[in-house]
Amino acid sequence: MRPKIYLFGDSITEESFRDGGWGASLANLFSRTVDVVLRGYSGYNSRWALKVLDRVFPEAESGGSDGASPPPLAVTVFFGANDACLPDRYAAFQHVPVDEYKQNLHSIVSSLKKRWPKTLILLITPPPIDEDERLRHPYAENPSGLPERTNEAAGAFAKACVETAGECGIPVVDLWTRMQQDPDWRKAYLRDGLHLTQDGNKVVFEEVVKKLNVGGLSLEKLTVDLPLLADIDHGDPLKAFQ
Amino acid sequence: MRPKIYLFGDSITEESFRDGGWGASLANLFSRTVDVVLRGYSGYNSRWALKVLDRVFPEAESGGSDGASPPPLAVTVFFGANDACLPDRYAAFQHVPVDEYKQNLHSIVSSLKKRWPKTLILLITPPPIDEDERLRHPYAENPSGLPERTNEAAGAFAKACVETAGECGIPVVDLWTRMQQDPDWRKAYLRDGLHLTQDGNKVVFEEVVKKLNVGGLSLEKLTVDLPLLADIDHGDPLKAFQ
Repeated sequence: MRPKIYLFGDSITEESFRDGGWGASLANLFSRTVDVVLRGYSGYNSRWALKVLDRVFPEAESGGSDGASPPPLAVTVFFGANDACLPDRYAAFQHVPVDEYKQNLHSIVSSLKKRWPKTLILLITPPPIDEDERLRHPYAENPSGLPERTNEAAGAFAKACVETAGECGIPVVDLWTRMQQDPDWRKAYLRDGLHLTQDGNKVVFEEVVKKLNVGGLSLEKLTVDLPLLADIDHGDPLKAFQ
Repeated sequence: MRPKIYLFGDSITEESFRDGGWGASLANLFSRTVDVVLRGYSGYNSRWALKVLDRVFPEAESGGSDGASPPPLAVTVFFGANDACLPDRYAAFQHVPVDEYKQNLHSIVSSLKKRWPKTLILLITPPPIDEDERLRHPYAENPSGLPERTNEAAGAFAKACVETAGECGIPVVDLWTRMQQDPDWRKAYLRDGLHLTQDGNKVVFEEVVKKLNVGGLSLEKLTVDLPLLADIDHGDPLKAFQ
């Protein structure tokens, strides 16, 4: 039975199987070794994520006492972009205070770690925000003329996410910082000031793969499902399947 | 627990999570409803597929007596492109006679149907072949100057696949015929005379979705996993998660 990697997050996870998406790229990389399982919930913040955690990862499919499924190899936990909505703008209903965000991440990580001590839990910070583009692509009527998210607020949540990873002793992709290392980050990586372009997806894919590799999850170390064509004897192909 | 759709096939399935791939597009379409599970094995023909069937779909993850997993909603079975390698060319070790191909498909379908009587089994024929491109993109040394596959042979396997579907009373995507309805099919749909371009992947995606819809598997009828953002009360978001 193939092992699994779960992608748990908000819309940036839910849409990660679009063309060039980071989830699809992971599934393609691990096409013969790992099932990449999509658990993205558009609009969700860490508070809602914590509420639904036991439904996202039910015992029956997660190495429960029946032993039907082994623990997943890894879980990416990618929240914060919605928590960072400002509390006095149109998306305030998604806002979560940064201290609670940090506590929610701690709760999610410790719950997953308790169930699966050996599973690699990988945090990903929210991406940076292009406020001008957010004004051009609002998700609701926005007569205020003010963006519902700011890059500064997203940065505070990214910092809290990085701190949480340090406190939990788990890896983190600091996407907020990584993307802004490119002077052209707004146009290169963001489609609407928040969601990712194909190049933005590529950054997530590459950074996640680096962290998986450091955690021992690389193609070289994973078991290939059934013989590769290159290992099949042309003179006696069926020998490979005995 | 989310239901599954398995994609079982050869390299055209294995690489279906590349950019614009038909597998990734299915996973994206069903991002909140179904797990699309990749079981593509590059180079495999129907003979090898039959040999490994019980390992690809082990009892433990397939609605076995422990009841851990419900039966999948659908399985796509997409072989024939390798069976259709000619028996006197360099890829002869992959060749399977067309009568055996048909029998192998029958065996695969009846095995899956026996285990999961209500699961939609969907056959997909091999695509057409552009012989000139196959000569330009050989997979091995080919001093003969003759392609290892011909479109005529692929057509015979496609016909056998369509017949098998009819005999089994299950749906089929006749990709060989469908693609050639476009006069520009060689360049539009094939990357190397055999594997699919992004437009070719789009054809597979659209045709598979049509057949799934006819079989009752459409977004409208599937259960969404956890509340959609649009259904969350802005005044009391947590109500949706009780």
